[in-house]
Amino acid sequence: MTDYNQMWADLGMDLERHDVLMCALPAIYKPMFLDRENRPKAMEYFDYVVSEIHGLRIQEIMEHKAKGGTVVGAFCVYVPEEMVIAADGICVGLCAGAEISVGSAEEILPRNLCPLIKSAVGFRLERICPYFQACDLVVGETTCDGKKKAWEVLADYAPMYVMELPQKKGDRDKALWTSELFEFKDKLEELTSNQITEDSLGSAIALVDAKRAALQRLYDLRKASPSPISGLDSLLIAQVYFNDDPARFTAKTNELCDELETRMKENGGVQESSVPRILISGCPMIIPNWKVPYLVENCGASVVCEESCTGTRLLTGNTNVKGNGVESQISAIAERQLKTNCACFTPNDDRINDVLNLCDEYNVDGVIHYSMQFCQPYMVEAEKIKKALGEKGIPMLALETDYGDGDTGQLRTRIEAFLEQVSK
Amino acid sequence: MTDYNQMWADLGMDLERHDVLMCALPAIYKPMFLDRENRPKAMEYFDYVVSEIHGLRIQEIMEHKAKGGTVVGAFCVYVPEEMVIAADGICVGLCAGAEISVGSAEEILPRNLCPLIKSAVGFRLERICPYFQACDLVVGETTCDGKKKAWEVLADYAPMYVMELPQKKGDRDKALWTSELFEFKDKLEELTSNQITEDSLGSAIALVDAKRAALQRLYDLRKASPSPISGLDSLLIAQVYFNDDPARFTAKTNELCDELETRMKENGGVQESSVPRILISGCPMIIPNWKVPYLVENCGASVVCEESCTGTRLLTGNTNVKGNGVESQISAIAERQLKTNCACFTPNDDRINDVLNLCDEYNVDGVIHYSMQFCQPYMVEAEKIKKALGEKGIPMLALETDYGDGDTGQLRTRIEAFLEQVSK
Repeated sequence: MTDYNQMWADLGMDLERHDVLMCALPAIYKPMFLDRENRPKAMEYFDYVVSEIHGLRIQEIMEHKAKGGTVVGAFCVYVPEEMVIAADGICVGLCAGAEISVGSAEEILPRNLCPLIKSAVGFRLERICPYFQACDLVVGETTCDGKKKAWEVLADYAPMYVMELPQKKGDRDKALWTSELFEFKDKLEELTSNQITEDSLGSAIALVDAKRAALQRLYDLRKASPSPISGLDSLLIAQVYFNDDPARFTAKTNELCDELETRMKENGGVQESSVPRILISGCPMIIPNWKVPYLVENCGASVVCEESCTGTRLLTGNTNVKGNGVESQISAIAERQLKTNCACFTPNDDRINDVLNLCDEYNVDGVIHYSMQFCQPYMVEAEKIKKALGEKGIPMLALETDYGDGDTGQLRTRIEAFLEQVSK
Repeated sequence: MTDYNQMWADLGMDLERHDVLMCALPAIYKPMFLDRENRPKAMEYFDYVVSEIHGLRIQEIMEHKAKGGTVVGAFCVYVPEEMVIAADGICVGLCAGAEISVGSAEEILPRNLCPLIKSAVGFRLERICPYFQACDLVVGETTCDGKKKAWEVLADYAPMYVMELPQKKGDRDKALWTSELFEFKDKLEELTSNQITEDSLGSAIALVDAKRAALQRLYDLRKASPSPISGLDSLLIAQVYFNDDPARFTAKTNELCDELETRMKENGGVQESSVPRILISGCPMIIPNWKVPYLVENCGASVVCEESCTGTRLLTGNTNVKGNGVESQISAIAERQLKTNCACFTPNDDRINDVLNLCDEYNVDGVIHYSMQFCQPYMVEAEKIKKALGEKGIPMLALETDYGDGDTGQLRTRIEAFLEQVSK
């Protein structure tokens, strides 16, 4: 293994504390991923990416910075990666998925806040996320109260920039969001000293469209019964989406899909076709947050789809640019983004329709609604989704959990009981 | 006592359940208000208003409806009362301050939601708030995640209309909010069949400006040492502000202020001038939520000011209309409203400055930050406010509580310890 200690030290990281994190990861990754049988061979690449997620990828990012490149960190699919790339930047998802950093965040944030936010802020406070350390700009957004207010606190520790996502999707809101994108363009140009041109933005849009298309291809393959890939492996790919080099991610995901297509012709899926097909719907899951899908699959079900921001909420199709020039491109990005039906919007009935449609497309037997603790938008919507699913005769289990292990036994019991209910 | 049972029955209320609420109120009101010594004589009016809050005031509202008038319910100072009045409507604050209705709301809302929201929804579900029952329109807003998403659920039970309050205060946001007000004008005109004219809106603006001016006068008098009125009595007036007839409220508050001015010349205040002067800052308190200020004053301190939406956040001064016509008036309303520094905005440094200024103006010895449980915006800001106060040497105690009695003993202990710390 390469020794990255010098690089991490240069990034101002707390090496001792970071070692604790790095030592903990393989212990959960091995049983959840490496030890499972019948995995596609192409998953080796994604396993490698995870093993090098604080190593090789950071090294690439540092090489980019050494050549004068910029790094922008984000926590939300509404931060337009295309625009960062068009300004010759790298856009990365920041660490926000681990229990290790929650405690230190609770020293400056209330405990009654979602684990993702606490984890993210804690990663910065503890200096154990190399992406955070490498960032020239951290882009927050006003998607939820917890994030919106936490950015104000985080601004004392990181170079924050906050984009205002509106709360409805009317014409005024589309105009507001488009204006925010234009202001972000100015910010990026100032930060990078690069102009975002029709050419550079056009190439970046094509690059990111291709990345989404590859992920869409993977999701489409999971509609088969049995699914050719486990839910955990598929989730891992959606998670890596936020950190890997876009072109390489696209190529490797397409390679995987080629293998899956062959596998489907030969011997079917990863599990028996008789196991319950589960849709997990709700909050995103950031590496290494695999707790709930692991339990679901370990209890014998197949997670065939995730309706989340590490799932189908990424799959907004190609950016449909009408007309010429950067203005048209940016308007098209805004329009495409607003197809993502986040619970931050009101009303958000389109998300309910999405869930119903996904149940149909993926031939789902039951839905597990996943809320992070204290995530009020998703927790409230769970009730509406349960009602809509009930009318279609599809059972739903609402879970609310954090990043800790304390509730694993209770979750397993509830998931087992639910799977019994939905079993054919 | 007048028998209002027929009126309540006509409003579709659950009389039996409502009786439980009505019987509980005097038992807490008597020791908290009526039994206290040295209260201004003019408080008798406000005591009467509270005793008739579901009786006489509802009768007035029903008479208004019988003449074809409209009733609009709201939960936020950002709902422009002036515009409702200009359309010949009555704008009322809806019940949202009592534990009694929380349990039923938790059947359709998550438990991890602030008590104000759960109480409000529960009042509607249980049919025990006559204001709710009398409403032709319930106006929600997008101030926080909990409310924003709860309105979607409440829409199945009440005629909801949701105004989008932006999350920043830039030019784009001012434009968005002003547009929302124009759209609300259309909605009110459609609902009431009345036109909002320059004349009707001008009169309504003057009426509500006068109401705010009377409350400002009361707050100014509390700057004296000792304060001529208890914090509880003063809070009660700010609470009644949302339900009473505006002109009568103004007259009665000014009468009270006359009496207080006389009292100040004669014998000083309600308490010794040596007791600690406390500012309560944070979430609003809706009738009958008096738990924390009661404890503070019962422990021997004087609450001299409330930085909240049932306090100084109402005191945005007169509406400064520049130019002629309804457009200018509505723009002026928007501009005045945006002086209210709610924690829903980011950044919200003006609230920190407000708190620091109030500490100065009211000669405050200590600040109690009051957050409702799970209210993430205020909970996160508490940390920033504590830091700013610390730099000025002003101690702050952060409390987080709900509407229940379970934590009263613990709160009392913490408040006592805090008051010892700030005692001169």
